[in-house]
Amino acid sequence: MGGPEIERLIGLLAKLPGFGPRSARRAALRLLQQPESRMLPLAVAMAEAARAVKSCSLCGNLDSADPCSICSDPHRDRSLICVVEGVGDLWALERAHVHRGLYHVLGGTLSALAGTGPDDLNVPSLLARVHEGGVSEVILALGATVDGATTTHWLTEKLKPLGVTVSRVGQGVPMGGALDVLDDGTLAAALRARRPF
Amino acid sequence: MGGPEIERLIGLLAKLPGFGPRSARRAALRLLQQPESRMLPLAVAMAEAARAVKSCSLCGNLDSADPCSICSDPHRDRSLICVVEGVGDLWALERAHVHRGLYHVLGGTLSALAGTGPDDLNVPSLLARVHEGGVSEVILALGATVDGATTTHWLTEKLKPLGVTVSRVGQGVPMGGALDVLDDGTLAAALRARRPF
Ligand SMILES: [Zn+2]
Ligand SMILES: [Zn+2]
Repeated sequence: MGGPEIERLIGLLAKLPGFGPRSARRAALRLLQQPESRMLPLAVAMAEAARAVKSCSLCGNLDSADPCSICSDPHRDRSLICVVEGVGDLWALERAHVHRGLYHVLGGTLSALAGTGPDDLNVPSLLARVHEGGVSEVILALGATVDGATTTHWLTEKLKPLGVTVSRVGQGVPMGGALDVLDDGTLAAALRARRPF
Repeated sequence: MGGPEIERLIGLLAKLPGFGPRSARRAALRLLQQPESRMLPLAVAMAEAARAVKSCSLCGNLDSADPCSICSDPHRDRSLICVVEGVGDLWALERAHVHRGLYHVLGGTLSALAGTGPDDLNVPSLLARVHEGGVSEVILALGATVDGATTTHWLTEKLKPLGVTVSRVGQGVPMGGALDVLDDGTLAAALRARRPF
């Protein structure tokens, strides 16, 4: 329609989550109409982020610093580790300001359907962090799905022998729901209502 | 949360049409998780498009070639000019394969509310193209809004004295509707049912 550059831009935008061909065309058009003020800044921000952002070698968070800004924050309670499935869940908890400790990003849950086994999750690094000492409680903040519950129970069996308190977020996570779509109040309630196994 | 690069990326994504803070975070996360295979290609495509794509100096279409690929296509009927409000409308008509002539992009419609007057539209260049000769019909394909109808009538008055047939797309454009959300069949019907003034 307008050359290969436009086709390519629309094709890549259409692969973004929440985008289809129609919304990709709309976004492309908006960007093309403001190349200097909209498109170039976004292109630069993407290139910058792709260059700078890495997984934190301690917790698995995404950050341009390693260790991440949470792991290296002296004001965080280092005796408390909140285990989440993904970085989106970590972001949700941080937005809600409901957790003052550190995190550990599993990178998924056990899933027979998706073929995700123990070796696909960041579990050895979690066990190592607990082993090193200084951790008094591990809060398992996984979604209330079948896979989330399976993973919660499996992790509890792994962590208990290390002499650490293991709790899971309780009341507040709706059945079948994912953490990163919950409102702040629900997230706060879920964290408060955590219970030790 | 993860450094200024991530905040900046989310902030810019959130300004895309159809995106809000939540969908911007989701898109950013997806891109950050695949920096090499997703984010860098999109960044490059944006930079390339911003560099290459310009407004066609003849018709106002967006293209990396000038004149655009439509204006320079020897197979298009050069005696027929379809006038549209924006490039999105041109894209819609091209996807529907319902117009074999050339286009002219007005860049808006007359609008008292938006303060868009005759001087804000690409009308002199349209009149010049008709003046040059070789044009037998100008099809006005503006939306069936109050502003669209006002602009259609105003343009008709301008074009008629030049001795060219002026028609407007008719049956098919729903009241209050914009052209670029219509299905192909409706667009084809609207074009077939055009009538001369
Ligand atoms: Zn970290
Ligand atoms: Zn052109």
